[in-house]
Amino acid sequence: MATRNDLANAIRALSMDAVQKANSGHPGAPMGMAEIAEVVWNHHLRHNPKNPHWADRDRFILSNGHGSMLIYSLLHLTGYDLPMDEIKTFRQLHSKCAGHPEYGYAPGVETTTGPLGQGITNAVGFAMAEKLLADQFNRPGHEIVNHHTYVFMGDGCMMEGVSHEACALAGTWGLGKLIAFWDDNGISIDGHIEGWYTDDTAKRFEAYGWHVIPNVDGHDAAAVEAAVQAAKTVTDKPSLICCKTIIGKGSPNKEGTHDCHGAALGDAEVADTRKNIGWNYPPFEIPQDVYDGWDCRTKGQGHETLWNNKFAEYAKVYPELAAEFKRRMAGDLPANWKEHTAAFIKATNDKAEGVATRKASQNAINALAAVLPEFVGGSADLTGSNLTGWTGAHHVHGKKPGNYISYGVREFGMFAIMNGMTLHGGILPFGGTFHMFSDYAKNALRMAALMKQRTIAVLTHDSIGQGEDGPTHQPVEQTAGLRYIPRMDVWRPADSVETAVAWVAAVERRDGPTSLVLSRQNVPGIKHDEAHFDLIRKGGYVFSDVAGKADVILISNGSEFDLAVKAAAELNAAGTKARVVSMPSTNVFDRQDKAYKDSVLTPGVKRVAVEAAHPDFWRKYVGLEGAVVGIDTFGESAPGGALFKHFGFTAENVVNTVKSIL
Amino acid sequence: MATRNDLANAIRALSMDAVQKANSGHPGAPMGMAEIAEVVWNHHLRHNPKNPHWADRDRFILSNGHGSMLIYSLLHLTGYDLPMDEIKTFRQLHSKCAGHPEYGYAPGVETTTGPLGQGITNAVGFAMAEKLLADQFNRPGHEIVNHHTYVFMGDGCMMEGVSHEACALAGTWGLGKLIAFWDDNGISIDGHIEGWYTDDTAKRFEAYGWHVIPNVDGHDAAAVEAAVQAAKTVTDKPSLICCKTIIGKGSPNKEGTHDCHGAALGDAEVADTRKNIGWNYPPFEIPQDVYDGWDCRTKGQGHETLWNNKFAEYAKVYPELAAEFKRRMAGDLPANWKEHTAAFIKATNDKAEGVATRKASQNAINALAAVLPEFVGGSADLTGSNLTGWTGAHHVHGKKPGNYISYGVREFGMFAIMNGMTLHGGILPFGGTFHMFSDYAKNALRMAALMKQRTIAVLTHDSIGQGEDGPTHQPVEQTAGLRYIPRMDVWRPADSVETAVAWVAAVERRDGPTSLVLSRQNVPGIKHDEAHFDLIRKGGYVFSDVAGKADVILISNGSEFDLAVKAAAELNAAGTKARVVSMPSTNVFDRQDKAYKDSVLTPGVKRVAVEAAHPDFWRKYVGLEGAVVGIDTFGESAPGGALFKHFGFTAENVVNTVKSIL
Repeated sequence: MATRNDLANAIRALSMDAVQKANSGHPGAPMGMAEIAEVVWNHHLRHNPKNPHWADRDRFILSNGHGSMLIYSLLHLTGYDLPMDEIKTFRQLHSKCAGHPEYGYAPGVETTTGPLGQGITNAVGFAMAEKLLADQFNRPGHEIVNHHTYVFMGDGCMMEGVSHEACALAGTWGLGKLIAFWDDNGISIDGHIEGWYTDDTAKRFEAYGWHVIPNVDGHDAAAVEAAVQAAKTVTDKPSLICCKTIIGKGSPNKEGTHDCHGAALGDAEVADTRKNIGWNYPPFEIPQDVYDGWDCRTKGQGHETLWNNKFAEYAKVYPELAAEFKRRMAGDLPANWKEHTAAFIKATNDKAEGVATRKASQNAINALAAVLPEFVGGSADLTGSNLTGWTGAHHVHGKKPGNYISYGVREFGMFAIMNGMTLHGGILPFGGTFHMFSDYAKNALRMAALMKQRTIAVLTHDSIGQGEDGPTHQPVEQTAGLRYIPRMDVWRPADSVETAVAWVAAVERRDGPTSLVLSRQNVPGIKHDEAHFDLIRKGGYVFSDVAGKADVILISNGSEFDLAVKAAAELNAAGTKARVVSMPSTNVFDRQDKAYKDSVLTPGVKRVAVEAAHPDFWRKYVGLEGAVVGIDTFGESAPGGALFKHFGFTAENVVNTVKSIL
Repeated sequence: MATRNDLANAIRALSMDAVQKANSGHPGAPMGMAEIAEVVWNHHLRHNPKNPHWADRDRFILSNGHGSMLIYSLLHLTGYDLPMDEIKTFRQLHSKCAGHPEYGYAPGVETTTGPLGQGITNAVGFAMAEKLLADQFNRPGHEIVNHHTYVFMGDGCMMEGVSHEACALAGTWGLGKLIAFWDDNGISIDGHIEGWYTDDTAKRFEAYGWHVIPNVDGHDAAAVEAAVQAAKTVTDKPSLICCKTIIGKGSPNKEGTHDCHGAALGDAEVADTRKNIGWNYPPFEIPQDVYDGWDCRTKGQGHETLWNNKFAEYAKVYPELAAEFKRRMAGDLPANWKEHTAAFIKATNDKAEGVATRKASQNAINALAAVLPEFVGGSADLTGSNLTGWTGAHHVHGKKPGNYISYGVREFGMFAIMNGMTLHGGILPFGGTFHMFSDYAKNALRMAALMKQRTIAVLTHDSIGQGEDGPTHQPVEQTAGLRYIPRMDVWRPADSVETAVAWVAAVERRDGPTSLVLSRQNVPGIKHDEAHFDLIRKGGYVFSDVAGKADVILISNGSEFDLAVKAAAELNAAGTKARVVSMPSTNVFDRQDKAYKDSVLTPGVKRVAVEAAHPDFWRKYVGLEGAVVGIDTFGESAPGGALFKHFGFTAENVVNTVKSIL
């Protein structure tokens, strides 16, 4: 029978061999965390390799994602559908074993990690989701939501700012089922860390209100085991287990150095390591007794069966809740969704209210929340500005249940936590901040897109129309930047109806995130032809047309749309036939078929785009012959109306711009 | 004679009156920090209102920049050239009193603040710059560099992740002349903070190695005074003075609530506050005795004269050092700059080495560092990957002097610290990270552009050519995003010569930052016609032309440029006349005159752009009739060469793309 030592060494062997074969990757972290991993995965992680997606499994996140061979080794050894052939193609095209753990590639990878600090932040989101769902669904004697979230992290995660944001909030929430392991190996890529990383990390996490277990020998399985047990007994605080480890442990000449951080050990050192750790098998060969020692399939099936039985009991007593839990975890919309939202859009159009689109967004949140108990809203300390609150929202004040989160001034943390919540399932998160500060969070928004997650960013105060706060708070290039993120849908609606449709589209989307870019200032109400409701969903549509061939097409959106409408009226009155196209979402419009796109932007007709944002983005629609009324400088501090005039956002300037190209 | 209380109340009155007149702004923070400000500015800040830029003044940074009326009040009262008329136009177009303190608008504003967390991070940069310069220039008995950096920050700064990055590093460095005041008022925009911000902040900063002075009554001038004195006595650790304050202190009905955070108090409450604090003067009227109590001009001139005398003594003993100090603080280049760099560019061309552009960048750093002692390089823990180190670089290991900084895994912190260093003067900072992680730091790069600061970002591993690390590490939309930042110059050079020229341009630039976007993988060496050296500086130029009118113009840069060259050769051989344009910097090219631009991109000739980045950016050059060989999806994990083929970056595909549009 394989010893625990053998089990840990299997991770070492697979990791160093796969990195060696790829001649690329990080063997050091997997080798350094092998004993910790064995304790967690073999003795604590309640998972089922046969069904990587059962609802109440424990979650595991490798925040130091560069150590990806650790998780691939664990998935392979414990019995997930990740055959040795995948390990052998580590870091090659189409392998499930990508360079970093990619969500959706290998089964059992709960989130994509690699961009440091975001894994631990996702983990906080998973633990929050568990808590929020437990509060909503558990009933006395029926704890159908009850799992831990385990996370491994390295020094890099600890240094990243977002770890501060996430871990501070985790402390405030008292997330007792979050158990983090700090791989304290004293090494980062620049070398020994004492010149740049001297935090007393234990003290730092105590300051956040965490339960900290310091000074654990990460190569002593018994010590790690005791620490995990201790962590589990503290249920009102997240636990940090500080593990002293040796990076590349087992490599006789490279352990403890950054030589084993981002490069293969080399054939000679791999051979020496084999000898040193007593691993006498050829590369990619695992003896049966080691497989037997790792195999978690039966145990995992047992965990799941127990839960299935528990859930069946729950379903007997609370059939509606059980059905709702299944719907929520599947991410399906409620049965009355279509009619409810159709009625809301119609009512919004009937009212045709002239309000800021951030206010129209709040109206939409109110309407949709009525049928979406999965909504968990929030803001990075701008609730009253982003208008992300709604009637029926209950503030989660630290340990109090609810569905609205004040994330504090933590934009990056907020969106990366939201990624964790949506990956967990059962929750549809949205979060607000000023559009400018999507800059702080950009990579988390990108990660949502990469992982095809349905998160919704409410980005208000979207242009110089923001006004007095000045250039630090006035987006110029941010909208284009978000539109260029693959798979991100950006909407910048012109009125309350388009805002309503955009919200519905964001919720109905199943394969990616949405950014709603909204005005601070009021925009005119528009009474639409009801045929527009479907057209808006196409991202761009002919709002008003002319008889016969148009001389020019005005393309606009958001708070500038009204200028385009006014300019077109003036032009048409003066005999220049101007079509007006509303383009709330370029991303969605780009996905339409050519015939539709050509019907909106008729080839050969000159175009002028109007948006209070960087003009160059619009060249893809207006070409070299068209023109853009935009802004390519920083804004200024002044009332929004004054800035619109100052920077040329007037109907008069739109008219003159049209004349200049005809 | 005015009492200290009167002096503090003058801040309150000016702040609430200016906000009231603008009907926009934040009166609460200035009113809450009035006593602290009086102690610091009147009794500790060594500054000179008559000359806001003398070299060795103490620096002051209002990290909670939304409290901008605090600093405007202080500047006005102490005697800076900021007349009452400017205060009266607070937040109006062209006022020096912009909504947030903007560098370059009001004299005495050391940095632009508002985006939370970046002010404290800039402050760390100021304190680092002071230390680096002191190490380089001070001589026994001649301490010409010796000042404190004071910074005020609120809860928002404390919550932001970047404050963790900056303050941890400040602790490691032991920045004894950095004195921070935490405005602990228990309020943020969402309300009382206990639901989202429960850090034991004193403990957190102790964990960073700071000297922490807890529990100071921020409205007790004597207590604040004692704390500052204590902070000054600890010279090997930064100090945090935790001040308990009441936001909006003095407002009888709104103090202590978030009602006075982001909105005017209202006429009635302003009147009641006047009564409550015993301030019996009309709006915008300051009695002479209060002005007298604040006026720092004579004292400030005294500080400066003392230093001038000290510097004169220094110049006698160390004339060369003194001249060098003046050059450095003026930001001027060394006398031999032109010939040195011309020789380097020529030598690079003679060698025409085929290396990765990150390696070419390191060669440039080596060459330029020889004449630029103001270079302070660094990396966010990727020195060996970014190739930011050079011969003669000395690692600043915490408290050891040097000119190379391992910033740790702190991208945002690094670039915001660099902003502080360059604003301080005397230092030309550059810092490296993976191009992808410019996402983490984007807003700091934007702030450098907004403030016209010469910082240089070395962004390596710039595309899917990065290879095995996969989509989390492969930029797609990042380059376009940086190009759209107003005043940012992005260079993506194709070879070692263009890289050398880009570095020289970045250093010579005086009004903004530069991002150097560089390949991980090797690119072919190119032997240029020497006429190219000047043409490269234009951002885009005709690399190779055809006889007569071209059929097509290929525009490319970076690691894909070689594909364009090869495709053009193939096209020309087959009778399609293809001009090749190298476009290393679209930003710089866009600034050229129309005649030059038309000579490169001849109107009417179809164009195809080739860049391993989001294609839509290039529509501004190729129009609707042209085509782009680009990538608008996420990358994959595989060797870079395999990915280039997989995503269509081959000469063959470029040729076919050209054929498809002709």
